[in-house]
Amino acid sequence: MHVMVIGAAGMIGRKLVQSLAADGTAIGAEIERLTLVDVVAPSVPPAFPMAEALEIDLSQPGSAAPLVARRPDIIFHLAAVVSGEAETDFDKGYRVNLDGTRALFEAIRQEGEREPYRPRVLFASSIAVFGEPFPEKIGDEFFTTPLTSYGTQKAICELLLADYTRRRFFDGVGIRLPTICIRPGTPNKAASGFFSNILREPLSGKEAVLPVDESVRHWFASPRSAVGFFLHAARIDTAAIGPRRNLTMPGLSALVGEEIEALRRVAGDKAVKLIRREPDPAIRRIVSGWATDFDARRALALGFSAEKSFDEIIRIHIDDELGGSI
Amino acid sequence: MHVMVIGAAGMIGRKLVQSLAADGTAIGAEIERLTLVDVVAPSVPPAFPMAEALEIDLSQPGSAAPLVARRPDIIFHLAAVVSGEAETDFDKGYRVNLDGTRALFEAIRQEGEREPYRPRVLFASSIAVFGEPFPEKIGDEFFTTPLTSYGTQKAICELLLADYTRRRFFDGVGIRLPTICIRPGTPNKAASGFFSNILREPLSGKEAVLPVDESVRHWFASPRSAVGFFLHAARIDTAAIGPRRNLTMPGLSALVGEEIEALRRVAGDKAVKLIRREPDPAIRRIVSGWATDFDARRALALGFSAEKSFDEIIRIHIDDELGGSI
Repeated sequence: MHVMVIGAAGMIGRKLVQSLAADGTAIGAEIERLTLVDVVAPSVPPAFPMAEALEIDLSQPGSAAPLVARRPDIIFHLAAVVSGEAETDFDKGYRVNLDGTRALFEAIRQEGEREPYRPRVLFASSIAVFGEPFPEKIGDEFFTTPLTSYGTQKAICELLLADYTRRRFFDGVGIRLPTICIRPGTPNKAASGFFSNILREPLSGKEAVLPVDESVRHWFASPRSAVGFFLHAARIDTAAIGPRRNLTMPGLSALVGEEIEALRRVAGDKAVKLIRREPDPAIRRIVSGWATDFDARRALALGFSAEKSFDEIIRIHIDDELGGSI
Repeated sequence: MHVMVIGAAGMIGRKLVQSLAADGTAIGAEIERLTLVDVVAPSVPPAFPMAEALEIDLSQPGSAAPLVARRPDIIFHLAAVVSGEAETDFDKGYRVNLDGTRALFEAIRQEGEREPYRPRVLFASSIAVFGEPFPEKIGDEFFTTPLTSYGTQKAICELLLADYTRRRFFDGVGIRLPTICIRPGTPNKAASGFFSNILREPLSGKEAVLPVDESVRHWFASPRSAVGFFLHAARIDTAAIGPRRNLTMPGLSALVGEEIEALRRVAGDKAVKLIRREPDPAIRRIVSGWATDFDARRALALGFSAEKSFDEIIRIHIDDELGGSI
């Protein structure tokens, strides 16, 4: 099998590549070839030194065709401009998130017209395809009315993916990711950053800022679950999905207060004391428009799974990022 | 007010132009200028001889900007490749229905960047944005999972319209039309053609073929209602719509058998006898995948209205197409 990861230098991309390199049958068949693509050169994992790393911007006209001409059997497409940037830079968001993805899909179709070719395409979508007001739990048949350009671009690519799949140009699955928590790295300016910051920083003995109330509810999964979603989607019998190819992934609906109580259980009061309350009305307003809970029953029935408690999410961070102990 | 109709040579476009020409305040303000656009030169209505008719293909690169440079206050965008053609000619469908519409939206944004400009844009969408299986009645929050490329293109344009409206590049409303009945003209090859044929032909003393059972249910509105939807959307206070700018229009959910009984009431047994049953499994299969009923409560609350019986639909055809009597 030839596996291609587009967006291989991003947070989920790197972890996905690590998993593919560490377990040669993570996608249910032997990986013989691994092509890593990103706008910045992705690292070649030590466990898979034959992997090829390509520095390519999918949004540049003509860049998709040579990639697809390598005829990967499985394409993980994670490359995107993030939500905040897609909102401030309208042109870039549409160019990368919509035109880049459409160019990839089109290149696959064109390649298949030359000679039969029908790869599996796993596309990173987002719960940003939904816009408030929401029902208490968002079901699998709730409509997509995004309130950001990023969410709009993801929702459009979902529609393209479903149509290209229906027409058998490729075999696609859209993976609507929950907010990933705990994001490794350093605090960033994303409005959602604090959900991770208030756990990650105290676990390393550092202070973190909480800009919202403890009663804020949101929808989470660990980076490990996110990688698991993509690997599962690569292995699954897609006939069982039917034509509705975009799936809300399972996750954990939890309060900020529950995050903090889990931190207390795992790392003690000392860690919790490192959380500094600093209410920020702007962040509170943004977050109040986000989805809080889902009934992801289709994905669950198809075997996708995520964490069931914040204790689990914290332990995964300790295992995967902190060498197993704090 | 300067009003532009794109797709002015089509069936709804022609009727819309007639209404605009006949009633100078049909959009709630005086029409001073009327620009008609289509890939084939639209006719200038005798009642508005100063209207300009332009033969322009919106899907040709560069064609949208000069249109928008005329700075119409209201743009009715009805131009599209129909469902069947979008399915058989993949490239053309995406080029016209998606790229053409996006080019129009982009041209408006660019024009507004040069000098403030925020027209109202009324976009013809379709119930083809929905794909089976359906609930008994499709509600306003049901998701869009089209099963045709045409429906996909319409659903994508709806998302673009909502995002461009949210960002205040224009003031858009997406109008999801029911199946229009009775379509004037001659029987065509569209799978939905028989819904109109079995009324229109007998009303003129001609035979018509019914390829499905009388128990088939579908969702209808008259051409007059379709024009009314667009005019109402041009006049309405759009603040009342909020950010969810794509609206399923009201319609009539009726059985083929109810069509026929209405024909009997209006035109007698003699007309009904002109309907020849000729079951066509292919058409029956296509039609079985179509939506049958909607709960269009948002549009109703916003003042959109349609027929409540097939008697009404038939009388409108007699009034508008047959000079008021049969």
